[in-house]
Amino acid sequence: MNDVLDYLKTNQPRFVEELCELLRFPSISAQPQHKKDLRACAAWLVQHCRRIGLNAELCPTPGHPIVLARTPRRAGVRPHYLVYGHYDVQPPEPFDLWNSPPFEPTIRGRQLFARGAADNKGQFFAHLKAVEAYLKTSTSLPCDLTFVLEGEEETGSASLTPFLRAHRRELRCDGVVISDTGIPKKNLPALTYALRGIAALEVTLRGPSRDLHSGLFGGSVENPAMALSQLLAKLRDAKGRVTIPGFYEDVVALTPLERKQLRRLPGTEKSYRRFLGVPQLYGEKGFASTERTTARPTFEINGLTSGYQGEGGKTIVPAWARAKITMRLVANQQPEKIMKATVAWLRQLCPPTVHIEISAGHGAPPYLIEPTGAQVQAALRALRTAFRYEPVLIREGGSIPIVSDFKRILGVDTLLLGLALPNDNIHSPNEKFDLDCFTAGQRMSALLWPELAKTE
Amino acid sequence: MNDVLDYLKTNQPRFVEELCELLRFPSISAQPQHKKDLRACAAWLVQHCRRIGLNAELCPTPGHPIVLARTPRRAGVRPHYLVYGHYDVQPPEPFDLWNSPPFEPTIRGRQLFARGAADNKGQFFAHLKAVEAYLKTSTSLPCDLTFVLEGEEETGSASLTPFLRAHRRELRCDGVVISDTGIPKKNLPALTYALRGIAALEVTLRGPSRDLHSGLFGGSVENPAMALSQLLAKLRDAKGRVTIPGFYEDVVALTPLERKQLRRLPGTEKSYRRFLGVPQLYGEKGFASTERTTARPTFEINGLTSGYQGEGGKTIVPAWARAKITMRLVANQQPEKIMKATVAWLRQLCPPTVHIEISAGHGAPPYLIEPTGAQVQAALRALRTAFRYEPVLIREGGSIPIVSDFKRILGVDTLLLGLALPNDNIHSPNEKFDLDCFTAGQRMSALLWPELAKTE
Repeated sequence: MNDVLDYLKTNQPRFVEELCELLRFPSISAQPQHKKDLRACAAWLVQHCRRIGLNAELCPTPGHPIVLARTPRRAGVRPHYLVYGHYDVQPPEPFDLWNSPPFEPTIRGRQLFARGAADNKGQFFAHLKAVEAYLKTSTSLPCDLTFVLEGEEETGSASLTPFLRAHRRELRCDGVVISDTGIPKKNLPALTYALRGIAALEVTLRGPSRDLHSGLFGGSVENPAMALSQLLAKLRDAKGRVTIPGFYEDVVALTPLERKQLRRLPGTEKSYRRFLGVPQLYGEKGFASTERTTARPTFEINGLTSGYQGEGGKTIVPAWARAKITMRLVANQQPEKIMKATVAWLRQLCPPTVHIEISAGHGAPPYLIEPTGAQVQAALRALRTAFRYEPVLIREGGSIPIVSDFKRILGVDTLLLGLALPNDNIHSPNEKFDLDCFTAGQRMSALLWPELAKTE
Repeated sequence: MNDVLDYLKTNQPRFVEELCELLRFPSISAQPQHKKDLRACAAWLVQHCRRIGLNAELCPTPGHPIVLARTPRRAGVRPHYLVYGHYDVQPPEPFDLWNSPPFEPTIRGRQLFARGAADNKGQFFAHLKAVEAYLKTSTSLPCDLTFVLEGEEETGSASLTPFLRAHRRELRCDGVVISDTGIPKKNLPALTYALRGIAALEVTLRGPSRDLHSGLFGGSVENPAMALSQLLAKLRDAKGRVTIPGFYEDVVALTPLERKQLRRLPGTEKSYRRFLGVPQLYGEKGFASTERTTARPTFEINGLTSGYQGEGGKTIVPAWARAKITMRLVANQQPEKIMKATVAWLRQLCPPTVHIEISAGHGAPPYLIEPTGAQVQAALRALRTAFRYEPVLIREGGSIPIVSDFKRILGVDTLLLGLALPNDNIHSPNEKFDLDCFTAGQRMSALLWPELAKTE
């Protein structure tokens, strides 16, 4: 292992140069004119993976290609892990807000500025460099590894699910490792052990067959915008709890260990309130903000539409009113069950003066890996040694659909071992990656495989 | 009087021809390319008024000209009434829905089809023909009359208020007569004795300083769309009453006479429900639809706007949510007082988790002329004789701002003596005017002046 760590230490300058090379590809998956750049970037990765000793291939998809790169297989002998990453990036616009061009990687201090530096090229590249260290120092890799690097993450990973299905056999593994999340600060490495799920729907209340003159007809007919307001108002009680019957039934309560971990996160309620720009924080009574955003389910109105929205006024009773809604779910809520309960509740509450239409949108289950489990403990050990700080266990409030895909299709858990800092400007101008996180990430990856092998 | 009525009877074919001439002007005030047509129409009216014996002049305004036409003045000797009308018309689009071209007047049966036939050329022309009958038969007119015919009614009458102010002295009068409303059916002539007023406002709730990721932040911060829903929901109670303190304080209750009149209106709740296309009617408990739309004040949401409104979904906690609101007011509610009470109530109900912004829009007082007053009784007698049916007293739910202007600037009441039928397609394709209403209107006008003179 010392050879591996020494190799990593010695080769940092070259690794940074190589990462810069990778960052020069404008692999913007959302912009069709960059299709060739995505292909070139994927081809570069295949070549690079081969050079460091992996069996790599470019797998075409209906969208952008997927790079599949494997350590020499010793299947059945050692545990097999997937490392997932994505080489596509967010659009860089607006260009004028960048201090250096987004596809001309620039180092200022220990920060490497470029679109995709943190999200996600720098993060998965750290794993590649760790494997290179094993292979180039002829150190025995305690696990078989397969890298799955896709080019459509920023546009919804449309090709990944069918790809996983089609390659289910050869991708059979003991777990997935993804570095595509964040850590609270440089001296607080983290493992994300929970994500919230989601259930989306749209509810429309229809009243009169057309917008009515509010003078001639107002007062004799239900106003769909008022009906919608009164309907939505009933979905949340005075304690900030969602009123849908059974909504909290399957929610797993936070353990004392988890609450203790949450208290280790930096920041105060006051600084958080200022950051959000709200007059005061608000949420379910009895929970802190860190709990409300990660361990508790929510009912959010994402949009309201009814009647006239232009300048000035229009004296109408609108024909209809609509709300877009998403609910964030936590373990062990099931999107289908929650959706069913929500639809039933909305129908029950809807007055007979309007017609209700509900269209269900996408759903994704919440994700929770036991924080006391062997793989998590192994990863924490690797993090601790690599970063030289005690790692924290965190939950994230968002959803990462591919994690559910790995669970559903391959039947395995994912270890989310992010390397990005809160100020890395992901999806924003001046995206950057901290080179200390890059090197710590390489060490973490190198240390992770023996730790995971021990759990077998 | 018999000479006058005979003259009217004898000259119907010519009157219709003249009206057709007037209807050929495409005097569409909303469309700048028709500016010349409005001027030509006004000039034609001036010539026509002079031909029938009135002193007429074209009064330029910053917008379209106003036609002022007077009977020879015998000021101080007889009562003086204004007759208001407007020669501008609504745009005729969509053309393809017209069975005959909108500016080529076409008679089918007793219906004269043309844009502006009922709204308002045909209606004020009936009054002109009645005056012509007096002047051409050398019958003494019991009242002095001044016609005020404007060209901007369909675009908001912007020039009328300053015109009334500037001509306040010469327009000093005992009342205003307007035929620009409707009657329930041909055998049910009507006098509109009440209009609702209005108070408009816009309320915006602001939460976080920008739209927030509902996964990362949802649950820890008030959702302005939910706050708005819960705020608006509290504005109406379970009995359909507006909860604003003091809202009903100044509302004048319907008298038994008025309720009796309302019960004379045709139509059933069932046919009304079908006409509106609603699953069921709804309104303030204890009142019929005819009362709810005319004699009771309302609180209507005209529009809701918040967050994402496009296709699909966007997982955000919106930064703000907005409602456009109008309240219809009835005598003796005062827009200023109601607005003040509403703003105070909204502020009181608003939770501390969001900032509230309220911007007051336009206001107009309700209008009510005592149905037992002398002028109304005089008009009812004229209606009864002219139509040969017992007229009904009706309230209209909308607002006619010029009526308030006449009251405020000239200090006089307005008699609303409409001649349009519900199926006259006002503002729609195939607008028409019933020639029976045209002739009855002429008789009504001829009979009205002696009846009004008697009230002095």
